[in-house]
Parts: sequence; structure tokens; C-alpha cells
Amino acid sequence: MAMKRAAATAVRALTSSGNQAPSSVLARGLHASPGSKKIVGVFYKANEYASMNPNFVGCVENALGIREWLESQGHEYIVTPDKEGPACELEKHIPDLHVLITTPFHPAYVTAERIKKAKNLQLLLTAGIGSDHIDLKAAADAGLTVAEVTGSNVVSVAEDELMRILILVRNFLPGYHQVINGDWNVAAIAYRAYDLEGKTVGTVGAGRIGRLLLQRLKPFNCNLLYHDRIKMDPELESQIGAKFEEDLDKMLPKCDIIVINTPLTEKTKGMFDKEKIAKLKKGVLIVNNARGAIMDTQAVVDACSSGHIAGYSGDVWYPQPAPKDHPWRYMPNQAMTPHISGTTIDAQLRYAAGVKDMLERYFKGEDFPSQHYIVKDGELASQYR
Amino acid sequence: MAMKRAAATAVRALTSSGNQAPSSVLARGLHASPGSKKIVGVFYKANEYASMNPNFVGCVENALGIREWLESQGHEYIVTPDKEGPACELEKHIPDLHVLITTPFHPAYVTAERIKKAKNLQLLLTAGIGSDHIDLKAAADAGLTVAEVTGSNVVSVAEDELMRILILVRNFLPGYHQVINGDWNVAAIAYRAYDLEGKTVGTVGAGRIGRLLLQRLKPFNCNLLYHDRIKMDPELESQIGAKFEEDLDKMLPKCDIIVINTPLTEKTKGMFDKEKIAKLKKGVLIVNNARGAIMDTQAVVDACSSGHIAGYSGDVWYPQPAPKDHPWRYMPNQAMTPHISGTTIDAQLRYAAGVKDMLERYFKGEDFPSQHYIVKDGELASQYR
Repeated sequence: MAMKRAAATAVRALTSSGNQAPSSVLARGLHASPGSKKIVGVFYKANEYASMNPNFVGCVENALGIREWLESQGHEYIVTPDKEGPACELEKHIPDLHVLITTPFHPAYVTAERIKKAKNLQLLLTAGIGSDHIDLKAAADAGLTVAEVTGSNVVSVAEDELMRILILVRNFLPGYHQVINGDWNVAAIAYRAYDLEGKTVGTVGAGRIGRLLLQRLKPFNCNLLYHDRIKMDPELESQIGAKFEEDLDKMLPKCDIIVINTPLTEKTKGMFDKEKIAKLKKGVLIVNNARGAIMDTQAVVDACSSGHIAGYSGDVWYPQPAPKDHPWRYMPNQAMTPHISGTTIDAQLRYAAGVKDMLERYFKGEDFPSQHYIVKDGELASQYR
Repeated sequence: MAMKRAAATAVRALTSSGNQAPSSVLARGLHASPGSKKIVGVFYKANEYASMNPNFVGCVENALGIREWLESQGHEYIVTPDKEGPACELEKHIPDLHVLITTPFHPAYVTAERIKKAKNLQLLLTAGIGSDHIDLKAAADAGLTVAEVTGSNVVSVAEDELMRILILVRNFLPGYHQVINGDWNVAAIAYRAYDLEGKTVGTVGAGRIGRLLLQRLKPFNCNLLYHDRIKMDPELESQIGAKFEEDLDKMLPKCDIIVINTPLTEKTKGMFDKEKIAKLKKGVLIVNNARGAIMDTQAVVDACSSGHIAGYSGDVWYPQPAPKDHPWRYMPNQAMTPHISGTTIDAQLRYAAGVKDMLERYFKGEDFPSQHYIVKDGELASQYR
């Protein structure tokens, strides 16, 4: 079915664009069919906060700031936060939507079942980075295109990771709690507050975010390590000042601080389980803004409780939103937030612009910037394989 | 009286050390008299935390780790956290102590009155940086030497400042509160969460800490400004990438984020009052790890309540410890801690070593490293004038 749908689309695209269609259309196989499209966006609801900042475009109310533009071109644009269960708003539109825009911050899980029902679906756009809420294999098999706004919030996430490293190393939160509780006990903070300087920081994954983090860590005079599938080219490596560790299991026990910067894939799912954590330094600090499911939830709770992990901070959970009884909310030495690091106002403006650009290209039958593709022509991008 | 005491000390020092005394002794005027000294240290009490980390030397219980060494040399070493009021432990020892070691984290206020009573006092050592809890003019008039362990915690404080900048810019604490309260509302955080990249950060003061902060900020691609009495040399300035602002009042309204890195002096006391704050950008973020009294307490509360200041973070208060009803504890958008940034375990080890080194030199009648002097030969160091 997959390839049939793709092929049909391609033919329609070619027919509609006539001579103006780029020559690559037939080869790529997946472009907009002519006429009005039904586009559905799933974003978080901002309620009273929607009107508090004119640049707060990432919410349902402000809908990436593209409603006027889309409607002026004759497209239908449905936006909803309601994404779970058979009776939700999203489910109603699944059978006839052409484009689905989702975000990692309020993920609409695009399952194989939903993809099967979505007969008109051609394009899945992630406003942000990280498309693991989509069944990518099912999307590939169905001939869909999946794309994200690569780069749109890498700086935002890297900055946030450095903040979390410092919050843990410096033991910030116990001090803040003293303040709001009317206490003053410097010793109760200081006995486990350290400088970042001189510590060993390792990143699991040194893609765009990992590299930006390493660059920002450089002036802190740490011992920087990175594990990745590929070694950086020597010039970049020496500019960043980080040492490549080919064997993850050899790197991890050296680290005072571990930062997770790898996508969630079949390989990384549950990667930090009881056994892996047991091999880490006692008192290790972990920052994870990648994906919650890379960790074994209970193993993290147990290690934070025993003190083997001395601090855990991140903004990713599984599932999201985290239920009220998610144990990470209540474990000791956590510095967690809801999934927020990639949705700063600056990032929203960038990923809204990126989504608009891709829609524009989709309507015109043009290629996207190549780094944005997650699934194209039935194939997954390399980091998701 | 001042000069008389200094002169007498110098003569005794010269006599006792004989030919081994450095030739500068008479000229400097202030060295140890022979025989056993009474040394008093005022530190915070760590209670159960004292034994939790063998490197936690900055507390009363571990007393900078120099007790054995001092006592083996025949000196008396009294250590106490009890520093306030006429019946406190410190007060009992004022009349006959020779050396008083204090810290900015649990400051023993060395007033003119105490100095007058301290007939044997020769040396005031600050374990850390910042000696404004000492009446420096009275100390100078009395011919005392005041010295700090300059550099011992500058990295610690600079790191902590960068953490606080990020905590405010990224709107971390509302997210953390949601987590522990069982909530999940990304919008309530995101509508005022920003990237640090591209923002204008100005430091008021670019001494050691200010420069270390600027160096650490460089990879964040901000617009960096600094105000100081002296412009950096052009090479350092271009390496750091910050622009000199001669006129503070012209710099401040340009800043999205202001960091205070100036000592507390008669000139800087209450410097950020209602009028000064009114001239700042609406929504400005302020980080102050310098001294609480540089701010007008109520003006900060009012501006945080009105939203003119969108976030205020720091670890310094006036007085310290902050009383339970200090209004900064309860104002909106604060990210405060007790005075902690300069007393990380790493910093403690450095300032304990620095104090030991200066005591060693004092016993031998040797000069201290020149950058450690705050009051010497009746004169204040330049930054305190």
C-alpha cells in the first residue's frame, strides 16, 4: 500500500505543477497533491498564558502563527491539544488529514494503527526535534515523509543541559528550598556542592546538541569525553577539546557527570538499566534532555534513592505528560521539569518558521532542506536506523 | 594607638627572628610576635553533615583541617559558630586573640568596637573572598593586617553566576515546582522561557570573577558588556569578547541580564535603589552573588512584584544569615539560596590551604602574596577605597 500511495501522490504532484515541477519530483515520489489540504496541528494548550507573549507561537491558541497564511491559501487548518484515546479530537481528523504537525513537548503518538487509518496522510512534520513519538517504520512502509526542523532548538537544549549540570554539581535546589522554607543551613548544601572545573563530563552522543554542549563546556576547564558512532574530524575535536571514546562502557565509569544526547531508538531504549547504572561512578550526576525511555525508570529511582546516582536532571519522561504518580517526581536529588528545554520563545519562533518553510515547499512540490528528513522514500534517517 | 601597636609588633618580630627576618619586616611593620598565638576561627556549624565528606573542611567541626598542625606548633586554636551579641563565644576571646579567621558565608562582623577591645589582635584572615564584614577603616586605623585568599573561590562564584543566569533565562523553577506538585503545564513555563543566545549580558565589575564569568559566557553568543573602573587591555578584551562601558548608567538600560560583580563599598552600598532599577529594561534579570547590601532590599521586592525585574537570583543577603522574614525569601521570580557559591568543597580546600599558607608566613614573619592584602600598613586595597 505504501508505495502505491507515494506513487499516486507523485503523479498528481507532477500533473499539477506541470513544467514548473522540479525534475526530482518523480524520483522522490512524495509531493503535495493539488488543491486544498487539510492540515492538523497538535500543540499544548496555553490558556491564559497564550496572550502573555506575542511570540509564544508554539501553543494551540497561537498555532505556530501560520493560520492566516494557510487559510489565505485555501487550506484547512485544525489545531488541537486533544490527542489521546479513540474519542479525541485528533482521532476525528485522522481519516482525512493530509499533513499532521506534532511536537515532542506534547507528543501525539502516531502509531501504526493511526497511520493505517490516515488514508490521505502524506506528511508528518515535527515542530521541534525528535520524532520518536511517530512509528517511523510504519511511516516509512506507508510511504509517508517525516521531517523535523533540525537545528531549530539545538542551542536551546544545549544551554538547558549546561544549566542542569550546574544545578546538580552546585547542589542548587536544597539551597533554594531552605530559602523558601525560612531556613539557613549552609553546611547542608556545601557538604556536597562542587565546582564544575576539573570534573569529567561525558556525553553519550555528540550530534548537534552534544557538540554545542561541549563547546559551551570548554571554558569550564573540565575533562571532556564523548561517545558517538563517528569520531569528529580532528580539527573540530581539537577545537572542542573533547576526547573520543569508542567504547561507551569504557567511558561511562570515568564520568563524574553523564549527559545523554542520543535519540531514542530500538538500541537506546532502556539502555540505562540496573546493570549499566551499577557500573557508573558512585555519586555520578546524570542529565537527560534526550528521551525519558532511554532510562529504565525504576532503575533511576533506585539509584537516586541509594545515592549511587547523586543527582538526576532532565526534562524528558515516559510517557508525556508525566502522570501525577510518576516516580521521578518524588525521588531524591532530582531536578526535573516538564518537557520544556526545546520550546523557549526563541526556539518556537525558529521551529514555527521551519514548519512554514516546509509547508511552503510541500505546496510547491519542492524538496526540503535535506537535514530535515527523518523518513524519506521509505527510508529512515541514519540516526534512527 | 594604631601605629603604635603595629610598630611594637614589628620590633618584636624583628627581635625574635634575628638575622632570618626578611629585610622588609621593619618597613612593613606587621608580623607575628614570638611564641604561642591564640587563633580564633568563626565558621558555620555543619552538625551531621561534617562527617559526610572528608573534604568538607570549611565548617566548625573540621576547622579548615589545620587544628593538628596549629596545635603541634604550640598555638591555641578556638573555633566557634557563635558570633552575635555580647555573650557570644567569639566575644569572650576578643580581648586576647592574636588572629581572627572569618568567612563571608557565616560572617562575624568585626566592628570598630570589637577591634578596640581586641588589644592583641594583629591579623584578620578571611577564609574566602570579601572582607566587608570587617570595618576596614577601623582595622587600618588600628594597624591591623587584613587579608583574604584572593582567587580561592573566584571560579566557584563565576560558575554559580552562570548557573543563575540560565535558571532565570530558562525559567527553570516554575517547571521544577510543577514536577514536585504533580502538575504538567508546559505553557506556564514556556511563555517566558528564552535562550541565553543573543541576549545582552552586562557585568557591573569585571575583576577576577567578572572576567571568569565573561570567559564562560563567550560560547553562548551573547552580546557581552562590562563596566569597571578600568578598561581591560585590548588583547584580553578581544579574547573575552566583551565591550567596555565607561558609563554604568548608559550600560544598564541595554542589558537583558545584569550581573553584579563589584565589592560592597561606601560607593556601592544601596546602589540599586528604586531610581536605578526604574531605568533598567522592563523584564530585566539580575544575578547578584556579590553582596546583598548593594541592592536596596525593598526596591528589589517591589520591582520583582511589579514584573519590572522578571527574575532575581543570588546567594547574598543583608544581613546574613537572612532572617526568616527576609522579604527576598517570598518575593515572586526569585531563585535565591543561602550564601553558598564560594564554599564548594573545591573552594574550601583552596581557601583552607590559603589560610594555612598565610598563617605559616605570619609565624615566620614573611610577607603574604601581595594580592591577598585587603588592609596593609594602614591602607585599604584599591577595590575597597
